[in-house]
Amino acid sequence: MYVVIMAGGKGSRFWPRSRVAKPKQLIDIVYRTTMLQATVERVLPMVALKHIIIVTGAEHEQLLRAQVPDIPPENILIEPVGRNTAPCICLAALHIASRDPESSMVVLPADHYIAQPDAFRTSIALAVTEAETSGSLVTIGIKPLSPETGFGYIEYAAPDSCVHGGAYPVTRFHEKPDLAHARMLVARKNVFWNSGMFVWKTCTILDALQRHLPDVYHCLAAIDIAPPHSAYQRSIAEAYAKMPAVSIDYGVLEKSDQVKTVPGDFGWNDIGSWSAVYDLSDKDAGGNVFRGAVKEIDAHNVLVDAPSKFTALIGVQNLVIVDTGDCLLVCSRKHVQDVGKIVSMLELEGLKQYL
Amino acid sequence: MYVVIMAGGKGSRFWPRSRVAKPKQLIDIVYRTTMLQATVERVLPMVALKHIIIVTGAEHEQLLRAQVPDIPPENILIEPVGRNTAPCICLAALHIASRDPESSMVVLPADHYIAQPDAFRTSIALAVTEAETSGSLVTIGIKPLSPETGFGYIEYAAPDSCVHGGAYPVTRFHEKPDLAHARMLVARKNVFWNSGMFVWKTCTILDALQRHLPDVYHCLAAIDIAPPHSAYQRSIAEAYAKMPAVSIDYGVLEKSDQVKTVPGDFGWNDIGSWSAVYDLSDKDAGGNVFRGAVKEIDAHNVLVDAPSKFTALIGVQNLVIVDTGDCLLVCSRKHVQDVGKIVSMLELEGLKQYL
Repeated sequence: MYVVIMAGGKGSRFWPRSRVAKPKQLIDIVYRTTMLQATVERVLPMVALKHIIIVTGAEHEQLLRAQVPDIPPENILIEPVGRNTAPCICLAALHIASRDPESSMVVLPADHYIAQPDAFRTSIALAVTEAETSGSLVTIGIKPLSPETGFGYIEYAAPDSCVHGGAYPVTRFHEKPDLAHARMLVARKNVFWNSGMFVWKTCTILDALQRHLPDVYHCLAAIDIAPPHSAYQRSIAEAYAKMPAVSIDYGVLEKSDQVKTVPGDFGWNDIGSWSAVYDLSDKDAGGNVFRGAVKEIDAHNVLVDAPSKFTALIGVQNLVIVDTGDCLLVCSRKHVQDVGKIVSMLELEGLKQYL
Repeated sequence: MYVVIMAGGKGSRFWPRSRVAKPKQLIDIVYRTTMLQATVERVLPMVALKHIIIVTGAEHEQLLRAQVPDIPPENILIEPVGRNTAPCICLAALHIASRDPESSMVVLPADHYIAQPDAFRTSIALAVTEAETSGSLVTIGIKPLSPETGFGYIEYAAPDSCVHGGAYPVTRFHEKPDLAHARMLVARKNVFWNSGMFVWKTCTILDALQRHLPDVYHCLAAIDIAPPHSAYQRSIAEAYAKMPAVSIDYGVLEKSDQVKTVPGDFGWNDIGSWSAVYDLSDKDAGGNVFRGAVKEIDAHNVLVDAPSKFTALIGVQNLVIVDTGDCLLVCSRKHVQDVGKIVSMLELEGLKQYL
């Protein structure tokens, strides 16, 4: 078994803490370690270091390698440019197939929070068994807690039609819905959030990629991974320049009839905004979360992330305050979804030093 | 005529912009120049540089001298420790009397805002004439705009009983009142705010000090101001160690029957809090005042004073945000009076680096 950790992504929703040079997965947004390091630690009880593959962008290679020095250097695959999850997974699958065509693959994002790692590993083990015995593409489903519009949804066949306990055939994918649609979906019993965590045999996903995304598959399958490093990197760059950006969900899973879902009940949170960081953090009696030296008079439900200075709050409520020395964010907790808009404004105006 | 500028004071209400080492009068809180520099510029049309006396604390001497290099060095009087306004004024009056016993004195705080300097100088000229002709202690009164609890109030005899047009006998002083009392006072027609600006003949105030505050007067009058500088400073230090802290209002004016008030209608503001800075500043369409690089999405009525960084605001209202690199204040505009409490907390906990 191999674990593939997808560590691309910009994480603009955590600006100014996350930056172009230091995205969410490479910062300690909820753990004492970085999100990536926590993801590695979480899988170590079930996989050897040499079977952990990390895929990242060229711009973060150096910082990433420094954060996981125990991962064999050749296990870190570099994408010259981000093309969403399908090319990333195809690259990793081809790499793993060259080592062991009969292996199975667990694909995990590098930037998710999981409260109960033991329960997580139990679900993954169940999904691996399912993938190996039935040849399915297995996605980990999360019981919806609210009508989130930021996730895709999975509809699955009711339990009494299932062959295996705990793995349900997926009947339909719903891409990120609007709020009304999300409310309707959450009201149903046979719907999960699509967590973006997948398990399959390496040969199964390669077959599916070849069938449903032949452009992606053939671009990458044609590359000889044996030659000198520099030639290999040049071939990868040429392939990525040609490939479309497409998600594995849209490009493969929605088109396949062999998808199953295993429910994951392990305190999952994709940490999609500063609100999630606030929700997951220990609070003082006033509902405040303070990182750094903070004094307050009559402050309530405020997240302060300002580790390098002294902060005073007086008479304020429901704020997210993030200071990085060069940048300061003061945001209503209701408006944390708009943080990315500030990043867009900075991009538009060419204020690169703050990105 | 001499002008005495009282430049003591800690200005903890403007923390973290004002600091122990750099109080309000020595920073550019509303002007492009510092409050002290603006005060000097305001009086230059009516007095020669050599007739401007500045009194300050030893801890601010160096910074202050650098801000007003044109003031003759011997015109800057150093108090070893703050003892409120009566010792400060007595020190300045004795100094001026040694140069010209027949002079008159205009006493001004260093940290007030005045919108109309011409009207200010007209009022001062009227007060000087009054002080010289009648031998009164003249205080500049400001027509109250609201029931402020941070000012003393002056009750004066109704205009029809006045001998001189524009100078009214003061009948009673009211120390800083509670809100109910302030409301009652503001409702009356014959009440002014006590601005803390005074005009008198040097001999008049020295006579009054000798009569009403003999401890203060004799402590300072006994000092020979002729000897070498070091001996003089030692004598001053000994005198200040013995003297009580007392205001000129409480110690002299309230006890004198020769006090008059000249109304000042020149856009006066004592800049008592960050709210005053907000009120006096130009605002954008959303009612925001920004100092520094600021972008906002749906922000209203926010004062940002963060000149050395990039600040983003999202969905916030009615805040005062001040960043100095080492410290950050985020305060509801309704709670700006509590800024001093943060300074007290820092003092209590010995966090001197943030004071």
